[in-house]
Amino acid sequence: MTNIQQEFKKLAVIGTGVIGNGWIARFLAQGYDVVAFDPAEGAEAKTRKTVSHAWSSLEKLGLAPGASRERLTFVPTLEEAVSDADLIQENVPEREELKKNVLASIDQFAKPEAIIGSSTSGIMPSVLQEGLTHPERFLVAHPFNPVYILPLVELVGGEATTQAVIKKAAQFYELIQMKPLIINKEIEGHLADRLMEALWREALHLVNDGVATTEEVDAAIIYGAGLRWAQMGPFLTFHLAGGEKGMRHMLEQFGPALKLPWTKLEAPELTDELKEKVIQGCESHAGDVSISELEQKRNEFLVELLDLVEKYWPESNNLVKK
Amino acid sequence: MTNIQQEFKKLAVIGTGVIGNGWIARFLAQGYDVVAFDPAEGAEAKTRKTVSHAWSSLEKLGLAPGASRERLTFVPTLEEAVSDADLIQENVPEREELKKNVLASIDQFAKPEAIIGSSTSGIMPSVLQEGLTHPERFLVAHPFNPVYILPLVELVGGEATTQAVIKKAAQFYELIQMKPLIINKEIEGHLADRLMEALWREALHLVNDGVATTEEVDAAIIYGAGLRWAQMGPFLTFHLAGGEKGMRHMLEQFGPALKLPWTKLEAPELTDELKEKVIQGCESHAGDVSISELEQKRNEFLVELLDLVEKYWPESNNLVKK
Repeated sequence: MTNIQQEFKKLAVIGTGVIGNGWIARFLAQGYDVVAFDPAEGAEAKTRKTVSHAWSSLEKLGLAPGASRERLTFVPTLEEAVSDADLIQENVPEREELKKNVLASIDQFAKPEAIIGSSTSGIMPSVLQEGLTHPERFLVAHPFNPVYILPLVELVGGEATTQAVIKKAAQFYELIQMKPLIINKEIEGHLADRLMEALWREALHLVNDGVATTEEVDAAIIYGAGLRWAQMGPFLTFHLAGGEKGMRHMLEQFGPALKLPWTKLEAPELTDELKEKVIQGCESHAGDVSISELEQKRNEFLVELLDLVEKYWPESNNLVKK
Repeated sequence: MTNIQQEFKKLAVIGTGVIGNGWIARFLAQGYDVVAFDPAEGAEAKTRKTVSHAWSSLEKLGLAPGASRERLTFVPTLEEAVSDADLIQENVPEREELKKNVLASIDQFAKPEAIIGSSTSGIMPSVLQEGLTHPERFLVAHPFNPVYILPLVELVGGEATTQAVIKKAAQFYELIQMKPLIINKEIEGHLADRLMEALWREALHLVNDGVATTEEVDAAIIYGAGLRWAQMGPFLTFHLAGGEKGMRHMLEQFGPALKLPWTKLEAPELTDELKEKVIQGCESHAGDVSISELEQKRNEFLVELLDLVEKYWPESNNLVKK
């Protein structure tokens, strides 16, 4: 057992909506004792149903030794849930005042050294930790739905969060098979949600302006960019669209388009400094793998992915009208 | 042989960069004769190399009877390339004047009934067809890299394009195993690129503002949203994030976030009309499949997709720094 395993034995989940339940399923599958609290009527039954639904996928991903759905306890008060926990995951609705109130209670009843992670999609940690007695052990730990399958968790500390807490949290989330992405600059929406939100708002504009239906937007992503982003993300994907010279050529060719009204979002100035950051970032991500090898890997991936899409959601075929 | 098969026998590709070569590979794999023209030195050798690289993936996807790399001919003039072609795909660099000049030559030398499709990423068809002798047979047919694997092609007619031409083009692109998405409202960037461009510009801002490196942006997409979008697109994905009540609940919970600075893009007003469009679109995309069944399909898909990502691009593991 590693040190980190010894330090985190009991986990508390506060708020059991879609995200809270996702955490519970992941924690249980990773072999932890979980205590949950949610004041909503019928919350426990809903959670147990969600965990049962998720379990077959979790088995396929691989359960930790000792993992059991029986190791979940619902308790009637927040105090009971957090008083004995080593890590508390907060998942109440995305309203600043509500979150601050709940976090104040967690802070009050938790052990002083327990780590508090908030699943907030967009509120900055410095805002949420204001007024806590022990703000140093608070951080944003923002996951993605379904939490029990998707590996990404964004970790963002506030001004009062210690580096030691961020480091320890990263080790813990990694231990439970996640990819902790530490974000060093606080910003509304953190990182992933800013990207998602930009696309989401543009999509809402397109629907609002009568350019497309939601189904056409879904089709435009499913059969195009969505397939590529899953493997390499937006930057490395464009690195491959530039041919042999990669991102350098891509920026030469499409840089001028940043001035065009191709979205309602204004682009930053494509300065030499920004260009070099982008080019070098792509070259570093690609590592020693040549563009031609990258293309081969991408192609093989896409051929298999198209089969998967067809296997699990052939209904998208109906999105493209004849 | 269908009527459409009889109508399209010889295809011309003008401009053989990454996109033009992608078209050539797809056309050849689908069993067509292809004539290509590009004034750049060494263009033919580059194209043949690209097609060779793509061929193993095309074999996996399934070659049409008679498909052969030998059925590609490079010719020294645009006139020779297009004079005998039934469909001409234009892929010169994304500069309006250049495209208009090349399209004027294509229009001049092509058979009057030949269809001209432009691969333009963002220029509106009405702009490009201005001044053509036969503007009625011109449309935007915008594909996605790698064109020989990704099925999406956006079809946009200009003011002068006939409905018959759009319909015939849709039949043709479908015949070559694509998903033609007909877009009825002309707009800069069409549909898919607007979504991609919004995310891309936000990503550039994040890099420019020092919030994240390009590699962190890639990680944020690869391990999060990217995995989900490949299957169901942004709208249906959020439909599932709303729990049992789907998008209706999602908009209640995250609608207010549209007022928050979670991206540099301002959102539209979330009117009742827009809400209903979005909710009904998601319900229609989901069809008779319940949220719980959708979740099951999503989960099974994601479990397999994570394996694929690991199999073909384990290098992304290095993106998340320890």
